[in-house]
Amino acid sequence: MSERVKEFMIEGRNAVIEAFRAGKTIDRVYILDGCQDGPVITIKREAAKRDVQIKYVARERLDQLSATGKHQGVIAQAAAYEYAEVEDMLQAAREKGEAPFLFLLDNIEDPHNLGAIIRTANLAGAHGVIIPKNRAVGLTATVARTSAGALNYTPVAKVTNLSKTIEDLKKEGLWFVCADMDGTAMYNLDLKGPIGLVIGSEGEGVGRLVKEKCDMVAAIPMKGDIDSLNASVAAGVLAYEIVRQRLQG
Amino acid sequence: MSERVKEFMIEGRNAVIEAFRAGKTIDRVYILDGCQDGPVITIKREAAKRDVQIKYVARERLDQLSATGKHQGVIAQAAAYEYAEVEDMLQAAREKGEAPFLFLLDNIEDPHNLGAIIRTANLAGAHGVIIPKNRAVGLTATVARTSAGALNYTPVAKVTNLSKTIEDLKKEGLWFVCADMDGTAMYNLDLKGPIGLVIGSEGEGVGRLVKEKCDMVAAIPMKGDIDSLNASVAAGVLAYEIVRQRLQG
Repeated sequence: MSERVKEFMIEGRNAVIEAFRAGKTIDRVYILDGCQDGPVITIKREAAKRDVQIKYVARERLDQLSATGKHQGVIAQAAAYEYAEVEDMLQAAREKGEAPFLFLLDNIEDPHNLGAIIRTANLAGAHGVIIPKNRAVGLTATVARTSAGALNYTPVAKVTNLSKTIEDLKKEGLWFVCADMDGTAMYNLDLKGPIGLVIGSEGEGVGRLVKEKCDMVAAIPMKGDIDSLNASVAAGVLAYEIVRQRLQG
Repeated sequence: MSERVKEFMIEGRNAVIEAFRAGKTIDRVYILDGCQDGPVITIKREAAKRDVQIKYVARERLDQLSATGKHQGVIAQAAAYEYAEVEDMLQAAREKGEAPFLFLLDNIEDPHNLGAIIRTANLAGAHGVIIPKNRAVGLTATVARTSAGALNYTPVAKVTNLSKTIEDLKKEGLWFVCADMDGTAMYNLDLKGPIGLVIGSEGEGVGRLVKEKCDMVAAIPMKGDIDSLNASVAAGVLAYEIVRQRLQG
């Protein structure tokens, strides 16, 4: 199941600083010639500490290297991200003595949403993020940048069949909750134990087959006029309901 | 304080359908020639009902008209959005017999975040969103699209000085809460009354002057390795803590 993303660019000051701090292997840093502000000085210092080559280049060169168009004058060429195994996530939970808490993304297609969700998973204390192999967006440069460095810490696994993975994880004791309008108000569900949080795609929500595998369907209260929250916001709101319940013990 | 955004394109199927349903004035709809799926048929029906002109065009023409590059085969040319007044939001709360609930955005610069936050404000039952005149992003086509139609329902006001607006609103009985790591855990704050939720910018958080005006500083629990949630996710998590407390009465 293991897989590698090839050549990888980390773009933007915070993302590059986070990558250094997380101990990622950076091959080279491109910095806009003449750039001298605080974050850039930090990046130069981090690069020097690790004998990482710095190349001072013109804006045109950065624009050419950039996949996101938002390099802020700094691009790091990094070792490829490696997908994790689901088992590694369960192992991480065991080592921390915590009930497993996983995110499962049912075909998130927007890299900004995927990045923001990995960021949320990290801060909510989840042990990993599981994405399906087909259709969904993978770990692109935009995802890495939007994750604000979380991709360096939070493992992401790619699986062939999300329903099958849910079945396997149920045998490990996990319960599954997905978000849907026709569910039970999230405050009235017990979300404290080993849990998999299933987030649907932007357009279509959680797929029928995946939804049928879920033990609980959680509704986020909707007081407004439109249909649904942004996928990454919905993931955040539900994840933090889980955090709230877990903190209460 | 009132102001208009000039010519306005609504891009994407859901956004166009929502705009029709919300009764927005659409001047013209551009549809990709040959496009015949469900949402497009809905759009045609809505346009016919309202005598809105439909133009069938080639993909090149849509790409040219598109500001976001994500038109999904449909672009509507709409009447300009109008900024609201803060007083209108208070009036709306009064009419609904609800304690005012406003979002104040301290220099959100990413249109995806602004759109997602307006969407959250709508669904969390807020009465409006206040943004500063300078620096921050305005109501662009990307904001409208990312708001998934919420911009048709949730008023947005632009103010010259956010600190001054906070002072004025305090006289109306509002309390202000902003998010910051050094704050009190959000669960331990009383967020039930008339409230203004202040969200900081992506890079710098809430500005010092604005933060000093806030009555409460709320911390979202952070269990991870990185610094902060995406601004729109943080807004969602905090907004829904307010919703949770209000539902408890």
